[in-house]
Amino acid sequence: MTDFIEIAKSAKEASLKIASLSEDVKNRALNAIADAIEANKAKIFDANKVDLTQAEPLVASGEISKSVYNRLKLDENKMRDMIAGVREIAKLADPVNKKLFVRELDEGLTLYKVSCPIGVLGIIFEARPDVISQISSLAIKSSNAVILKGGKETTNTNREILSVINSALAKVDGFPENVVQQVFSRDDVAEMLKCDGYINLIIPRGGNSLVKFIKENTKIPVLGHADGICHIFVDESADLITAQKIIVDAKTQYPSACNSVETLLIHESFAKKDELLASLQLEEIKLVANPDSWAFEYGDKILSFKTVGSVDEAIEHINKYGSGHTDCIITKDVNNAEIFMNNVDSAGVYFNASTRFADGFRYGFGAEVGISTNKTHARGPVGLEGLTIYKYKLIGQGHIVADYVEGRKQFHHKDL
Amino acid sequence: MTDFIEIAKSAKEASLKIASLSEDVKNRALNAIADAIEANKAKIFDANKVDLTQAEPLVASGEISKSVYNRLKLDENKMRDMIAGVREIAKLADPVNKKLFVRELDEGLTLYKVSCPIGVLGIIFEARPDVISQISSLAIKSSNAVILKGGKETTNTNREILSVINSALAKVDGFPENVVQQVFSRDDVAEMLKCDGYINLIIPRGGNSLVKFIKENTKIPVLGHADGICHIFVDESADLITAQKIIVDAKTQYPSACNSVETLLIHESFAKKDELLASLQLEEIKLVANPDSWAFEYGDKILSFKTVGSVDEAIEHINKYGSGHTDCIITKDVNNAEIFMNNVDSAGVYFNASTRFADGFRYGFGAEVGISTNKTHARGPVGLEGLTIYKYKLIGQGHIVADYVEGRKQFHHKDL
Repeated sequence: MTDFIEIAKSAKEASLKIASLSEDVKNRALNAIADAIEANKAKIFDANKVDLTQAEPLVASGEISKSVYNRLKLDENKMRDMIAGVREIAKLADPVNKKLFVRELDEGLTLYKVSCPIGVLGIIFEARPDVISQISSLAIKSSNAVILKGGKETTNTNREILSVINSALAKVDGFPENVVQQVFSRDDVAEMLKCDGYINLIIPRGGNSLVKFIKENTKIPVLGHADGICHIFVDESADLITAQKIIVDAKTQYPSACNSVETLLIHESFAKKDELLASLQLEEIKLVANPDSWAFEYGDKILSFKTVGSVDEAIEHINKYGSGHTDCIITKDVNNAEIFMNNVDSAGVYFNASTRFADGFRYGFGAEVGISTNKTHARGPVGLEGLTIYKYKLIGQGHIVADYVEGRKQFHHKDL
Repeated sequence: MTDFIEIAKSAKEASLKIASLSEDVKNRALNAIADAIEANKAKIFDANKVDLTQAEPLVASGEISKSVYNRLKLDENKMRDMIAGVREIAKLADPVNKKLFVRELDEGLTLYKVSCPIGVLGIIFEARPDVISQISSLAIKSSNAVILKGGKETTNTNREILSVINSALAKVDGFPENVVQQVFSRDDVAEMLKCDGYINLIIPRGGNSLVKFIKENTKIPVLGHADGICHIFVDESADLITAQKIIVDAKTQYPSACNSVETLLIHESFAKKDELLASLQLEEIKLVANPDSWAFEYGDKILSFKTVGSVDEAIEHINKYGSGHTDCIITKDVNNAEIFMNNVDSAGVYFNASTRFADGFRYGFGAEVGISTNKTHARGPVGLEGLTIYKYKLIGQGHIVADYVEGRKQFHHKDL
């Protein structure tokens, strides 16, 4: 049995050591991981086969869906993406030790705001074993320690991948121990969620019941989103072709993605409503006019729809039923677009573009930690920056506060 | 009896309205508040007198300390500071609607990262009624709605101040209702802490038992700090006079402040240790060599002290017992200072400067929301920026993801 607190303590110690590691050592570590996965592909595939063999009867009995089974399965393509993903993260700019500002408070007294790691990340993920190399690499690049807990269906694969990673890290000169650790049991998850003394951020990667469970059961900040109830509002002045193209893309390009559209709102004065709905049905999109709930994520080619009287009514509907993920207005009226983007309280507010663009790679972040619907820390697609915070370095020459309180000296606050 | 959920819902609605309010309306609202407090001083003093009269027997019986009583009490100086504080906040730059970056993802497809309010703030404060005007103003300036819960000892004062504020706001053209609300009971606090569907951030203003209680009892993000266990490490090469000056300032300038020093660590090879300790005792600082706990906040002219063998041992002690608030090294060795600042995991890491500088005004933020020891969102002294998050606006011309996935188009990610 693992003693979770000991693991958490060692992760905390590791986080203090990796915090000041040079970019060079971190990048050597990442490339060593990529090389090691490449060199140990066969072992990883073997472990994955054991998991798949155990999963097969569960698929047959219906306990595991075919799509979950596909996510458990590693193949050459996924393996290549895993390895390439680690190498890409090595190439990104170091997100820590960046000077966010430098301000001279007074002569000889200078304040530096410097980005730094958060500390210890707790990652709870389902099904996809390729998450391990990705999240471990993001953690290393951002100088955080990490404790991973994967789905039980891929225990053998997860164990093998982490063993490959840690064997590689052990050979990297100057790289501290215990930066990447893994736990396996349900009890460990319960311990992790209680462990706010050692774990600074929880990142769930999985379906919305997992994310909801985690958010309900921890006081540790959680980075992620439970629901993706995205909306498209077709305004009175919308161009029919633009509306068709965007809705079809947002609903059918990858229906189970969190940034797919679930609800279509149409302005009652939009003249081509019938044509639009007919064209969507031709694309095999099923339209539901009276859904049981306006906050339901279909994950399929199904779309709730409703007629609204104004852009304000659309905004009100979205702020009431949406999940604060990504919502779009299709219009030719720039003024309405401004009103929509300023008043819809979502991470992404789009004007004439598909909701499917809500993604860290598409935003140009180079890597994606996840998509957040939080209102603090990080919102929307989160890149490496979301795994950092900052500290203030103040460098003086014996400066004391009494001099300023008693009027002998005055701050001049010059940004340098 | 107040129905807390109704208040929270109306705050949420108000937050959606104030989110897009112009800077001009917000500043007119702030100046109207300042004018109204000025014009209604007498009424506020009268209400405060009622509270003070009720508090007097509690002081006599020892239930309330004299220093708490002083904090309850409004006088002309505090009133002037309150009014000036509101006017100062009006003069600060608007923290919302700032373009944090603009990136062309592809021709005609442009991503804007724009600062915006968090939503609804819950403020729980003790004793000092002057917090109301300050926090209300910070909330308005940053376009957030706020629900305040003050200490029961100043119920009459709090009620009067908020009534003055809301009468003033009601007369400001275009300013929405219910932006600033107040609750009074213990039950309301319990409800507030559970209300994660409507409240986005809790800010406690008070002693560490209040802050600890709140952090233990809510899943809503809490901005603040419970303890201020600040350290000063006097390195082998430290200058005696610099060390004396800084330690005396950090311990005696305002001993009950959270950024006062509590523990002194001295390098065993620092030659002038005895002289330093003797000089501190001359300043009436009581030195404790074997404290019951290394994580105790004296709030008085008392200082734990310990000899350590190296800068690494000092860092280890601080990371183990500190509260991540503000810690200082006094040294002539720039290399040791770098090691200290990079490895101490605190919001403020100082080199030859008093820990008392940890303060939003001294950092040049213009206003201080509080000091945070969190590892996400905001850390250290927090200015108006800490009451904001951001949203992504994406403006396209009918752009769809399928074009990029299927290779017909490619992102070029140009920062503008």
